[in-house]
Amino acid sequence: MNRSQLVAQIKTKQNYLCVGLDTDITKLPKHLKDSADPVFEFNKAIIDATKDHCVSYKINTAFYESQGLKGWESMEKTLHYISDTHLKIADAKRGDIGNTSAQYAKTFFEVLPFDAVTIAPYMGEDSVRPFLEYENKWSIVLGLTSNAGGNDFQQLLVSNAYPESNMIPNLTQGNTEKRLYEKVLEKVASWGTPENLMFVVGATRASDLEHIRTIIPDHFLLVPGVGAQGGSLEEVSKYGMNKDCGLLVNASRAVIFASSDTDFAQKATEVSAGYATEMKQYLQGL
Amino acid sequence: MNRSQLVAQIKTKQNYLCVGLDTDITKLPKHLKDSADPVFEFNKAIIDATKDHCVSYKINTAFYESQGLKGWESMEKTLHYISDTHLKIADAKRGDIGNTSAQYAKTFFEVLPFDAVTIAPYMGEDSVRPFLEYENKWSIVLGLTSNAGGNDFQQLLVSNAYPESNMIPNLTQGNTEKRLYEKVLEKVASWGTPENLMFVVGATRASDLEHIRTIIPDHFLLVPGVGAQGGSLEEVSKYGMNKDCGLLVNASRAVIFASSDTDFAQKATEVSAGYATEMKQYLQGL
Repeated sequence: MNRSQLVAQIKTKQNYLCVGLDTDITKLPKHLKDSADPVFEFNKAIIDATKDHCVSYKINTAFYESQGLKGWESMEKTLHYISDTHLKIADAKRGDIGNTSAQYAKTFFEVLPFDAVTIAPYMGEDSVRPFLEYENKWSIVLGLTSNAGGNDFQQLLVSNAYPESNMIPNLTQGNTEKRLYEKVLEKVASWGTPENLMFVVGATRASDLEHIRTIIPDHFLLVPGVGAQGGSLEEVSKYGMNKDCGLLVNASRAVIFASSDTDFAQKATEVSAGYATEMKQYLQGL
Repeated sequence: MNRSQLVAQIKTKQNYLCVGLDTDITKLPKHLKDSADPVFEFNKAIIDATKDHCVSYKINTAFYESQGLKGWESMEKTLHYISDTHLKIADAKRGDIGNTSAQYAKTFFEVLPFDAVTIAPYMGEDSVRPFLEYENKWSIVLGLTSNAGGNDFQQLLVSNAYPESNMIPNLTQGNTEKRLYEKVLEKVASWGTPENLMFVVGATRASDLEHIRTIIPDHFLLVPGVGAQGGSLEEVSKYGMNKDCGLLVNASRAVIFASSDTDFAQKATEVSAGYATEMKQYLQGL
């Protein structure tokens, strides 16, 4: 799915909700546990229940890998069950040296028909580049994350200098005042375009979004952390939206585990429809 | 495998070689391609051919994932084929928010019986912590990587300050002269111990190893990049070794694809035995 198709879906449906399929097998409603593939049965019901109220699904690969081979099977079946009207994101946080990243890109863009994959930036350009080479596919690179550990490195102040040698330049000479995540946004943005690159920006820092929009005004942002992680949808929308919407706001647990009983699908409909209704207001007729 | 067991293996075998099973299916010798599971057949032959000349195997998960379900099956079979005398590393570069990292830890430490997994540090402490909670298992966190993109962020100069607010402090007040990778080594080291934590340090920067040993004198370092990526084993050993050896030097393509013909296993023996012989000298009777 390319950018204009994604924007068209957002305009048609009047929402920018991504439903996160972090399908923890230990949290499934009891009545599903005896089926042949409880994870897939659950996901199928969630997809049926939410597809009219969202534009994207994000499959958190960790919850499938931890079920071994059977989990990968559930992931494949889930992915194939999602209609092409929805952007399909592999939340996999991959990234390695070039020849290895090329294998990950093949995994998520060829072997599995995802539209997008999340990528960790620590290893730099050649770890991201192989993903960007696919047409009509998206690399979603970590910018600022909403977890507590996001502060450990992402908020560090960094110098603009890229010293070549082991000589450590004197930082008192100014031009040094940027945070690591800003540097990551800036530099990664130079490797792709708003047509093939998005960024993960944690919603619990909605006030940072206004600033982030000065660095990357045009890119789509994938915003996790609304719902169970405590971010405010109103603030995210106010500070993060651009002329094409430019936001995919993810809710996982708040939607899929809204009820742990036989009414889980109905509750998922209600919660996702609630987000969609709220989002419609913020879109202001886009 | 815990640290004393690993050190005992190194002392007994007199080498610290890790063989990287980056088993690219397109590079397999032709005569294996008709077998039911060419990747496993190849790995089995490589393991038989090299096990006396190495102390560890590193499975690069990307090359298995890119073969879909069948690839995960090959990975499982390979893992179970490796004897417990060898440290089994999942080179997976995982890392996510706490509840998701816990799923990855479960994948590699419970569902699959790996001893160690590589982790990307960008998301901070809660992304690493769940891996550290397993007894006799290892987290191998990216410090300094050997790829070209390693320069993009890892070498940035960072401030020691961890500002809480959006106010950007004046960096001219000194105490600012560290690189990101140094900060990562320092901070990550404080989350674990030399008994459950190692670091990836790229071998093409052997001259940096001396400096890195001033920051983390005791930890084991996993050093990729010797062989196909061009690092010097002599330099790595000279600057990286500590009193327990403290090094696992990885060679992947240089060993497993030493020949692309029917003699691939024999050539893998020769190349790994060559590294082992060289390593024995550097160990100087440890």
